[in-house]
Amino acid sequence: MGWENNVRRVTPYTPGEQPKEDKVVKLNTNENPYPPSPAIRAEIARLENRNLRLYPDPAASELVSAIAGVYGLSEKEVFVGVGSDDVLAMAFMTFFNGDRPVLFPDITYSFYDVWADLLGIPYETVPLTDELVIDPADYRRENGGIIFPNPNAPTGCALPLSAVEEIIRANPDGVVIVDEAYVDFGAESALPLIHKYDNLLVVQTFSKSRSLAGLRIGFAMGNEKLIAYLSDVKYSFNSYTMNRPSIVLGSAAVRDVSYFEQCCEKIVRTREAAKERFTELGFSFPDSKANFLFVTHPACPAEEIFRYLRERHIYVRWFDKPRIRNYLRVTIGTDGEMEILFAALAEYLASHGQKGER
Amino acid sequence: MGWENNVRRVTPYTPGEQPKEDKVVKLNTNENPYPPSPAIRAEIARLENRNLRLYPDPAASELVSAIAGVYGLSEKEVFVGVGSDDVLAMAFMTFFNGDRPVLFPDITYSFYDVWADLLGIPYETVPLTDELVIDPADYRRENGGIIFPNPNAPTGCALPLSAVEEIIRANPDGVVIVDEAYVDFGAESALPLIHKYDNLLVVQTFSKSRSLAGLRIGFAMGNEKLIAYLSDVKYSFNSYTMNRPSIVLGSAAVRDVSYFEQCCEKIVRTREAAKERFTELGFSFPDSKANFLFVTHPACPAEEIFRYLRERHIYVRWFDKPRIRNYLRVTIGTDGEMEILFAALAEYLASHGQKGER
Repeated sequence: MGWENNVRRVTPYTPGEQPKEDKVVKLNTNENPYPPSPAIRAEIARLENRNLRLYPDPAASELVSAIAGVYGLSEKEVFVGVGSDDVLAMAFMTFFNGDRPVLFPDITYSFYDVWADLLGIPYETVPLTDELVIDPADYRRENGGIIFPNPNAPTGCALPLSAVEEIIRANPDGVVIVDEAYVDFGAESALPLIHKYDNLLVVQTFSKSRSLAGLRIGFAMGNEKLIAYLSDVKYSFNSYTMNRPSIVLGSAAVRDVSYFEQCCEKIVRTREAAKERFTELGFSFPDSKANFLFVTHPACPAEEIFRYLRERHIYVRWFDKPRIRNYLRVTIGTDGEMEILFAALAEYLASHGQKGER
Repeated sequence: MGWENNVRRVTPYTPGEQPKEDKVVKLNTNENPYPPSPAIRAEIARLENRNLRLYPDPAASELVSAIAGVYGLSEKEVFVGVGSDDVLAMAFMTFFNGDRPVLFPDITYSFYDVWADLLGIPYETVPLTDELVIDPADYRRENGGIIFPNPNAPTGCALPLSAVEEIIRANPDGVVIVDEAYVDFGAESALPLIHKYDNLLVVQTFSKSRSLAGLRIGFAMGNEKLIAYLSDVKYSFNSYTMNRPSIVLGSAAVRDVSYFEQCCEKIVRTREAAKERFTELGFSFPDSKANFLFVTHPACPAEEIFRYLRERHIYVRWFDKPRIRNYLRVTIGTDGEMEILFAALAEYLASHGQKGER
């Protein structure tokens, strides 16, 4: 059939499983184990009168203004999108439009190369060090832009702000995007640098630290010029992407700073305790500042542990990819969920002749 | 600054104004004057327990299944997106990937050329006839795909199904997209043809006939192969675009077929009455099957009427474009809103020496 000659063929990204059973321990997609701010309750009650028949405000001003308020920015320094995936895809389209290769780590968020391929953007991946960390010195070469997560995914490793700044300072001729999806769990944000470097875009999300993955809200912060370029491309594609529920519930959630801080603290506390438990069980991992740990065991194949846990309705993430095939990415859940995980791991290890008891 | 050399520069689409005042008569963006189905009330009440902290189902199965059920399709024949703009942009990216020009009318939905430019898709516009209608004979030439709205926007003119089929039959070597955003107000859908032509994609939206512009839900219907290609590209871009509120509220709305039919009938009735009133006032217009009329007056410039109405808080749409500069696109509102419009028009015409009284 002739029409198929004009079709774009792609290998789609496989998202983490979203099991439909209720009784699972879901530690596979880095969601927040705690519910979103109770402040959204009142907004849900008001939704019916929110004129759902009308188009949403294309600028999502209420949400932009709430984010700007919380981060001490002007509204012109904030861009919102349908999850940080939408924000990042728009940023790729807007800023990575040159002929030189865009740089990102070889082990990183799995969408970067997918977007680059889809949009015809030339790119080169930069290997992490043997310790699975980003070395800023590796980003001193010709490029058409740089993107990396901080903390990186799926390793959880964070760069100190000075190292992030080193990368930005060395690359004034391209846009540097710092993808801070996990920054609220203990890493340093590059936000204070946006007034110093006009080519820095900081991207964050409501999906992790604000417990609103179900709403799809991401945002970018940068100087007015960057944000204006990004908005122009967005308006060329789809003026009304953020729906009315996201705008009003998201605004209420972001304004509730103290609840947000409490949730993040709880997750950090559980993560630090989990580090001890994993160590006791013989696992090792890069030091994570995210809401997940990237663990490996010297004696047991990650894939086997992955399948063992899955049979017990405990979902973690295993990537069948070079360099990281023997790692599992484990989202930090509630303390109770982590207990179930560690009990299953101890049992698995004991049955494989490893020390499994505390 | 070097980084600006890599930036994509675009002239953004200007959406219709979304005035924030409450007391306006808003007939400028083709929204439905009636609220969405009361069936969504119960779903709103349940939203808080809908696990907003978790990612939504990437396949939006609940919504896909509801749409498939209402239209008698299999779930594999339905694709959903964040408004029909999202669906159409994905379809452009997926199906218009060849070297030959894509064809669409010269006067049509303003996003088609914007997406084609943005995605580097070659295209040619095909002039409407002098009566502002699509002539199927004009679509018998080499092309890499075809898209047109039926009814067309902003004219409101509908092609009979036989004419739509003539275009599809003559073009087996490209995908033909029929954009049916306004089809529920009296035109014939091409849906029955999707099992006859495997290159036909029918796109519809919840924004007009289902009164849910505020949720952003669009959908495409076509054979399984087309839908699979579209899904692959979508998953390469952003797996989780449709948020949880859209999935559950949209599902409830689409299942309420009788409310939907009642609303459409009311709008058709108001539109037919409006045709008489416009004629009495000396306006002429192509015969619309949509929820808007595209009117012109022989003695009064459209731009002047547009500004006159706007001062009186009545918003209609005026496009500063070749061939249609002397037309106004007027959304069909409630009977009460139309009365306010006609009173203002009569006053305007009387003050300009035109017959303004009924």
